[in-house]
Amino acid sequence: MIHSKGYAAQRAETNLAPWNFDRRDLGPHDVLIDIAYCGVCHTDVHLTRNEWFPGIFPMVPGHEIVGIISQVGSHVQTFKKGDRAAVGVMVDSCLTCEECRNGQEQFCSVSPVLTYNNLDHSGQPVYGGYANNIVVHEHFALHVAENLDFAAVAPLLCAGITTYSPLRKWKVGEGHKLAVVGLGGLGHMAVKFGVAFGAEVTVLSTSPNKADAAKKLGAHRFVVTKDEEQMKSALRSFHFIIDTVAANHDINPYLGLLKTNGVYINVGMPAEPWQLPSFALAAGNKVVAGSGAGGLPETQEMLDFCAQHNLVSDIELIAIKDIHTAFERMLKGDVLYRFVIDMATL
Amino acid sequence: MIHSKGYAAQRAETNLAPWNFDRRDLGPHDVLIDIAYCGVCHTDVHLTRNEWFPGIFPMVPGHEIVGIISQVGSHVQTFKKGDRAAVGVMVDSCLTCEECRNGQEQFCSVSPVLTYNNLDHSGQPVYGGYANNIVVHEHFALHVAENLDFAAVAPLLCAGITTYSPLRKWKVGEGHKLAVVGLGGLGHMAVKFGVAFGAEVTVLSTSPNKADAAKKLGAHRFVVTKDEEQMKSALRSFHFIIDTVAANHDINPYLGLLKTNGVYINVGMPAEPWQLPSFALAAGNKVVAGSGAGGLPETQEMLDFCAQHNLVSDIELIAIKDIHTAFERMLKGDVLYRFVIDMATL
Repeated sequence: MIHSKGYAAQRAETNLAPWNFDRRDLGPHDVLIDIAYCGVCHTDVHLTRNEWFPGIFPMVPGHEIVGIISQVGSHVQTFKKGDRAAVGVMVDSCLTCEECRNGQEQFCSVSPVLTYNNLDHSGQPVYGGYANNIVVHEHFALHVAENLDFAAVAPLLCAGITTYSPLRKWKVGEGHKLAVVGLGGLGHMAVKFGVAFGAEVTVLSTSPNKADAAKKLGAHRFVVTKDEEQMKSALRSFHFIIDTVAANHDINPYLGLLKTNGVYINVGMPAEPWQLPSFALAAGNKVVAGSGAGGLPETQEMLDFCAQHNLVSDIELIAIKDIHTAFERMLKGDVLYRFVIDMATL
Repeated sequence: MIHSKGYAAQRAETNLAPWNFDRRDLGPHDVLIDIAYCGVCHTDVHLTRNEWFPGIFPMVPGHEIVGIISQVGSHVQTFKKGDRAAVGVMVDSCLTCEECRNGQEQFCSVSPVLTYNNLDHSGQPVYGGYANNIVVHEHFALHVAENLDFAAVAPLLCAGITTYSPLRKWKVGEGHKLAVVGLGGLGHMAVKFGVAFGAEVTVLSTSPNKADAAKKLGAHRFVVTKDEEQMKSALRSFHFIIDTVAANHDINPYLGLLKTNGVYINVGMPAEPWQLPSFALAAGNKVVAGSGAGGLPETQEMLDFCAQHNLVSDIELIAIKDIHTAFERMLKGDVLYRFVIDMATL
């Protein structure tokens, strides 16, 4: 077994605390990554606190992982010791079903294994990236270009791909007006990608205070959603809206801002169901689209795109002992725009 | 003014009864159609009874209209006396806004005029097709091929285009598995179009009794939605589902039947909002799409497609005096599949 140390929640009721545990020995297709940085995602809070469903404890969260390859299995072909590598929201799948063959391993219909709070194919719990190392099948490790700020790459593995994937699926680009709802970890990446793809990007926010921040990220326009006049002038104006808000909220006012044939993309995953009248979609042939992370080929494509455009997340680097404060600040939206744990502080 | 006679609801609380009224004189671009047949749509019940919102009374319902041109305005170029003609859910729009220019007049952002329960551009109420004649701008009249059973064409103007349009938008065809929910006026057309487009069509129904009827319409498969085993075996199996059910119902069990990237198309317009969890869409990048009728160019395209494939609605022809019975039977689903009023009985 490979010895690991990290931060774990022993139960849903306890804060994260240091914990020593073991990872499996390397199989022929596995790589061992010494983790350098791990991003802090809303999901880490939801899952360690059982906010969505009962979890598997002890739980080591973290699925925005970057590090350096320190060992490779006998048959590994795509990585060598010393390479930069990254791991996102999943670490295994069947690799043979229709979804896996189509490069959408995140929807594997047979045996998907998420990065933490899941069981691997041998029935053992898997542990995430709030730790000094991780073992994964090489198919689930990604290459990271040397030119990118390494710590700021970490959030690309969840916040990045989660926004990149639907914007690509719906071919958002030049000539399109894109609105981004919520300016957090996902939202700020949606702005950056929307701008990079050539769309005219508007940030929709309840708070006028975020106008400058939106502009700094490259957004072209800003609408205060509590301002009735501004909302009225934005009616029927967007081809696409991407909603990154994790808190429960009414999406109907936003649907009115879509043009005919407009698409509302949800990546925020609020816990309560939307109340969605059929008329809100029929009037204007509108679409509500869900999107969950991205497959491995597309995640690599995204990382390569980011390398070409020198595009990374805006982050605040923290020591792992400050993770509780980071959770609380993130829940209040008090971070520009993603906390990343410096694993050297472990 | 042009004298008309028809059946009207004088108030939301009264049954339809004979009524004499006037239509506007023909403008240079108007045509006068002597109505031969008019289909009976669920919307006619909803609107005459104020089930969606307060209506404009007296109300002459009916927006599945076919007839013969009896007079044309001085500048009319596309019709002549004696031509077959049809009118669907709308009779006017601005013809200049983005939607009108794109052939989606049904979403005109300036001045759409629905066929009944609406005011025309001069502020006068317009009356629908439960009548002996109608006056419309030639842009909103459609051509009907002589080879088609005329009475059975009438439902194409609403039930037909409402199902044809989204199936075309989403490019449903060969290699696709399409499920149809509800086997009424819209549902039976969705089956016919799905089969004509080359999809493998499955009817999803609460009632095993409808299996033979589905097969007769051309459906390849049938799933009884109350049968847990059948539903389980249908999980993740459809590329598209088109839901034509007008009554309130939970769509979540159906979302589970979609493949990854599957699209759920709603044309049934239940009055109460859906409860739609964000997870149901994110898991599998699923899409919920609304669709409202179709524009004039696409409606003509649909009628031409039907002429080429000799495709019409299955109907039960009624005398107009029996409209109350027809409403009640339609609400119980007791019709194969659309009532059409023979206007010779007026």
